[in-house]
Amino acid sequence: MATTQQPNDRAPRVVIVGAGAIGGFYGAILYRAGARVELVMRSDAEHVREHGLIIDSDVAELGDLSFTPAGVHAASDTPTPGADFVICCVKVLPGIDRAALIAPWLGPHSVIALIENGIDIEPAIRQALPDHRLVSGLAFVAVSRTGPGRLHHQAYGRVSLGNWPGGVDSAVTRLADLLHAGGIRAKCSESIVADRWGKSLWNTPFNPVSVLADGTDTDTMLDTPGGETLIRALMAEVAAVAAADGHPLPADAIDKNIAATRTMNAYRNSMALDQRSGRALEIEAILGNVCALAERYEIAVPRLAMLHTLIAMKQAEAGSDRS
Amino acid sequence: MATTQQPNDRAPRVVIVGAGAIGGFYGAILYRAGARVELVMRSDAEHVREHGLIIDSDVAELGDLSFTPAGVHAASDTPTPGADFVICCVKVLPGIDRAALIAPWLGPHSVIALIENGIDIEPAIRQALPDHRLVSGLAFVAVSRTGPGRLHHQAYGRVSLGNWPGGVDSAVTRLADLLHAGGIRAKCSESIVADRWGKSLWNTPFNPVSVLADGTDTDTMLDTPGGETLIRALMAEVAAVAAADGHPLPADAIDKNIAATRTMNAYRNSMALDQRSGRALEIEAILGNVCALAERYEIAVPRLAMLHTLIAMKQAEAGSDRS
Repeated sequence: MATTQQPNDRAPRVVIVGAGAIGGFYGAILYRAGARVELVMRSDAEHVREHGLIIDSDVAELGDLSFTPAGVHAASDTPTPGADFVICCVKVLPGIDRAALIAPWLGPHSVIALIENGIDIEPAIRQALPDHRLVSGLAFVAVSRTGPGRLHHQAYGRVSLGNWPGGVDSAVTRLADLLHAGGIRAKCSESIVADRWGKSLWNTPFNPVSVLADGTDTDTMLDTPGGETLIRALMAEVAAVAAADGHPLPADAIDKNIAATRTMNAYRNSMALDQRSGRALEIEAILGNVCALAERYEIAVPRLAMLHTLIAMKQAEAGSDRS
Repeated sequence: MATTQQPNDRAPRVVIVGAGAIGGFYGAILYRAGARVELVMRSDAEHVREHGLIIDSDVAELGDLSFTPAGVHAASDTPTPGADFVICCVKVLPGIDRAALIAPWLGPHSVIALIENGIDIEPAIRQALPDHRLVSGLAFVAVSRTGPGRLHHQAYGRVSLGNWPGGVDSAVTRLADLLHAGGIRAKCSESIVADRWGKSLWNTPFNPVSVLADGTDTDTMLDTPGGETLIRALMAEVAAVAAADGHPLPADAIDKNIAATRTMNAYRNSMALDQRSGRALEIEAILGNVCALAERYEIAVPRLAMLHTLIAMKQAEAGSDRS
């Protein structure tokens, strides 16, 4: 397998906790930038330790992303603390204590970075680990696991990074520089929460609606009679909560999101794929937390609340056997 | 098999079109009342012709309901016109021309009776067959097909009958008398449309919501966080349309429906069972027609509209292969 660069002793040590498709991809980018990259994997650890992580990318200019991490750890392995960056890519799910998964890899000067979806996902980390600098990040990437130790990178890759709840410190710029050196665009955002609301405008309607329609694609959602009207109404509710949260979205944000979605091919979002594969869904991070903020700000979100309740019913019917 | 009464020459001839579980059950009741009962069956015709219709009833006082119809017709058989009553129990589905299924059995004096669910299901029949008296009916019965030519009657059986759009003529009372003679309660309603709204208050929320939750039961719907609130909000929208349609429901109707549902055991409604079995769903009759009336009366029904759109998406994802 190809490698582009060997890490040296001065290279930052990066531990990626929850290195699935997203974490594995950014691990490869940081490896290309010269970091010592270690992956903590829920599955595939043994396979990747032996064979490295193979990444088939459709984005030719990135070159071969496959690499052999400096360390591959199963969840049960004893952590070695003191990473320069502990990047958390764990799914945000009720009952998963992300702080507990991050903590054992930290040293006194470690930076925590979250590359995760959702709204209001930082407070749990900040409260549990108040003494560490916290970088909050959003990934815009299409990458999925195709087999043991094997990923398929289909498109995109850029990230937005910022401190939570706001600002940009040297930890943010250092991580952004590394990602940029690895070949992708990394934007430093003075208001990562505003960026989260911008992404939520799409995810919060489209992801849960696709679940209720059994994992359907964007074309089906928009082309069903009443579909675009419903998506726009849900987006308007998200925008109202964003504004109440102090992060008003641009006036044309809904139109632009709909137009951009219509220019794509029919697309099954990550939650739709999770639904179709019986995997756990990030409903609370994507939708439940928006409803909770709406309640806090006393914003009426009848459609988002209905969506939340209907999905809870569907999950109750499916039983609690999802993993 | 047991029979309770043999029809005589003066007995009314009753043709039941679409004799599934509901039609078969009321066929048995009318047979007990002395009618000459013929069944038009989409499936099981050959089996029933040979073995009769077997009905296992949990309601002991009705006695054995099994019977051999005076005629059993497959959909492809040549109809003999001139029935006294043509009772239509066909599912109300887009693309199913019920009037065309009824028409060949009619003579000049035939009465058409509909024992079907839904709102605003009569105009299509009235327009296509304007010269016949029209009885509209609602069945309150729990009966299902358990095998070829075999039904399981679990509970209830009463009907409400009336002319459409209102009033009670001699056709209504004659049919009610027959059903009563067969052993069940048959109420003559001066406003069958009001009765339909009363039943719709329950069906229009519970049936489609159960579909989105993959055919779940009443307890799951009510006990999911936000579930009862959502059902009540949907009921309030139905009640608003009923009032605009000139049939206001009693002020305590919603409370009574919720309380009655909570006293039942966990119950999968007929649409939930249809969903779980991959059968066609009467979405338009139960929900779509309510939304259409809301639009006509300019009543806002955001949650009913959302429910309708979400189900359309789910059905689009499932493809058009449902039968």
